[in-house]
Amino acid sequence: MTAENTTYKKVGESIPQPRQVNPYGPNPADYLSNVSNFQLIESTLREGEQFANAFFTTEKKIEIAKALDDFGVDYIELTSPVASEQSRKDCESICKLGLKAKILTHIRCHMDDARVAVETGVDGVDVVIGTSQFLRQYSHGKDMQYITNSAIEVIQYVKSKGIEIRFSSEDSFRSDIVDLLNIYKTVDKIGVNRVGIADTVGCANPRQVYDLVRTLKSVVHCDIECHFHNDTGCAIANAYTALEAGARLIDVSVLGIGERNGITPLGGLMARMIAADREYVLSKYKLHKLRDIENLVSEAVQVNIPFNNPITGFCAFTHKAGIHSKAILANPSTYEILNPSDFGLTRYIHFAHRLTGWNAIKTRVEQLNLKLTDQQCKIITSKVKSLADIRPLNIDDVDSIIKDYHADINTPQIFPKSAANGTADIIDEDISIADGPAPKRAKVNGH
Amino acid sequence: MTAENTTYKKVGESIPQPRQVNPYGPNPADYLSNVSNFQLIESTLREGEQFANAFFTTEKKIEIAKALDDFGVDYIELTSPVASEQSRKDCESICKLGLKAKILTHIRCHMDDARVAVETGVDGVDVVIGTSQFLRQYSHGKDMQYITNSAIEVIQYVKSKGIEIRFSSEDSFRSDIVDLLNIYKTVDKIGVNRVGIADTVGCANPRQVYDLVRTLKSVVHCDIECHFHNDTGCAIANAYTALEAGARLIDVSVLGIGERNGITPLGGLMARMIAADREYVLSKYKLHKLRDIENLVSEAVQVNIPFNNPITGFCAFTHKAGIHSKAILANPSTYEILNPSDFGLTRYIHFAHRLTGWNAIKTRVEQLNLKLTDQQCKIITSKVKSLADIRPLNIDDVDSIIKDYHADINTPQIFPKSAANGTADIIDEDISIADGPAPKRAKVNGH
Repeated sequence: MTAENTTYKKVGESIPQPRQVNPYGPNPADYLSNVSNFQLIESTLREGEQFANAFFTTEKKIEIAKALDDFGVDYIELTSPVASEQSRKDCESICKLGLKAKILTHIRCHMDDARVAVETGVDGVDVVIGTSQFLRQYSHGKDMQYITNSAIEVIQYVKSKGIEIRFSSEDSFRSDIVDLLNIYKTVDKIGVNRVGIADTVGCANPRQVYDLVRTLKSVVHCDIECHFHNDTGCAIANAYTALEAGARLIDVSVLGIGERNGITPLGGLMARMIAADREYVLSKYKLHKLRDIENLVSEAVQVNIPFNNPITGFCAFTHKAGIHSKAILANPSTYEILNPSDFGLTRYIHFAHRLTGWNAIKTRVEQLNLKLTDQQCKIITSKVKSLADIRPLNIDDVDSIIKDYHADINTPQIFPKSAANGTADIIDEDISIADGPAPKRAKVNGH
Repeated sequence: MTAENTTYKKVGESIPQPRQVNPYGPNPADYLSNVSNFQLIESTLREGEQFANAFFTTEKKIEIAKALDDFGVDYIELTSPVASEQSRKDCESICKLGLKAKILTHIRCHMDDARVAVETGVDGVDVVIGTSQFLRQYSHGKDMQYITNSAIEVIQYVKSKGIEIRFSSEDSFRSDIVDLLNIYKTVDKIGVNRVGIADTVGCANPRQVYDLVRTLKSVVHCDIECHFHNDTGCAIANAYTALEAGARLIDVSVLGIGERNGITPLGGLMARMIAADREYVLSKYKLHKLRDIENLVSEAVQVNIPFNNPITGFCAFTHKAGIHSKAILANPSTYEILNPSDFGLTRYIHFAHRLTGWNAIKTRVEQLNLKLTDQQCKIITSKVKSLADIRPLNIDDVDSIIKDYHADINTPQIFPKSAANGTADIIDEDISIADGPAPKRAKVNGH
């Protein structure tokens, strides 16, 4: 943690204690970094409404806004009130909920939009205009002088109403750097609360983000907000790198829903940030509510949680390879930096497959309340691998092998002799000490 | 593109022409960059087999290997032949297929494993050992001197067999940097083909990756390979940044399947790389086969393609907001850097919702072969927004509104007078010039 970050930090409850060095923590040389001092602008109800499958009723919007507020997001951004009559009414309704999070709406850089926006009761207005040659030519057709004049007019108007104002360029990474810095410097002088950089087409890469944010940081005094689309899969990394370069606020949405394949996802960014500064993240956000929020939104827009979703994907905390399982069982930190219990989740060691190792099997033996030596566990492991080469196994299959083996080695030596007269059945019942279905006997070699 | 990269580049067919500057292209100041000179080590059949749901039969492994080879991956990495008897047999079978891609297997740094591996017929062996304090303490329990000695023995043995050898540390970002550089320098002197860096726990961030790869690049002469887990959502960005720092090879798997939530996905990395150097990527990889390969693997491991998957997610090329649709229709590059046709896919402008704009509606009018003025399209747009505020719309709903409106304005003035005597039905049929179900008449206001 840098000296600067310590000053910024609003923890207050206790004097920071020396702690173990975290290689994934903020780089002490990054004096600009806001990794330990970031805020979230949650845009599920704006960017997320632009997701192909999204249709939010008023009731659903309110339910989502309340859940996000409870989670602890700093801002909630809503669709422009000029998008439709219902959009305007919903914006007013959410402003009246009395949430802790500040409510923003997102408009084009037009006085027509601004006049409607300030009447809704929002705490702030996010203004955006395309500054790239592509958008200037094919979208609004305006030159930089016109854009600057519009921006000044809208910003002064919104400020006169006593609410927050953000000015953002659109498609910032394909905009002329001189044009960009000029307009940001101008709006910073007027006194915006923050300026925004947007990777509208989702193609920026981390070092490019670092350079632009850091340069901008040297030009403006206000906060910097960043918005990253995920077309090339870099939205989380770009957000993190932007914070390292001095950006303060990141736009997110639940599961990343938005135009095309979306933006920086709330959950994925939480995974990234908790790896860097667990204390800060846990002090601000109710991470154990994350799964419920993702379920709420995924049901509303009718998509499944991606199998490989950070944190909440069904296998995010499942360990399979023998070498991994062994170490995880000895110390979870070996293969797991994220602690599933921080998110109200548990880890799972997958042992019913041919890559399994004897340490995983030994743990399962202990879970079944059986006593076997390491050598005996290795024999069982070899049996599991042989069977797993033939067909997929489930947990019951492995438990059967373990229980049968345990039964065999615990059978009195007299057993083979008396097997012919029916004693075997009685002994079988005696050794069924673990719960689950009665094991089917397997042939045992060795021991 | 840097001078160095131009030299590396094996295009050959034509003299490079001056082209439009690509802001997402390799940074000309990055003399170390391999962004335009990278190779893929495809590990679906090794790392991917460690995915919780993976059970590949021999036939499925062969099918996947052939598909990956056809796609153009440089290497295919297979599960260690000592994992199980069938793993060894499958490794031998795939080596005998005569694929263009080189076949690798991935083993622990033990002579026992190495002896089995070199007998399978592979083109190379990937050796890995944990070097972090966590893995040294909780996994294999060996010190750096032991690790170094084992590495030297295994490397010299594999080299003596005339096949490729890679030495990788595991959990590299939590390893002591001096230990790491020492062992890499040692194995580089013996003459490995490449050294590997692995973010085994998935918590590295891009600038950290850049620093480590760049430092390593100054220590070794061989190629550098990188392996990134995706626990914190940075696996694609880390891979890209590693290439910028001079790494040459990236480990990928189809859909990123692997331990926990997996590694750098093949498709996502292709999205990232084509944004940087379209020419190089198209010259090496059959991108139009990507969707088929993802479907093949997703069916084999019984998962759905994530809704937000780069390129092949169902909405990756769907545009919804009015302002986006307008610009996309004028020039796709405004909001789309990736060209869907490069992947055998098409874009889709979503217009049946309350965020729609009149440019999207106008395009739909033209698709329906109807003639309406811009002003008339704006009136229809307002109707669509009103209806979309009430309930979710589908394309038929919007087409009905368009067709009804078109019918009304093209009805002769005499129509209202004769409606009472049954003429209306006949006129209705006359104007049903577009295909689709007969429209249900809607009330028309204005004009």
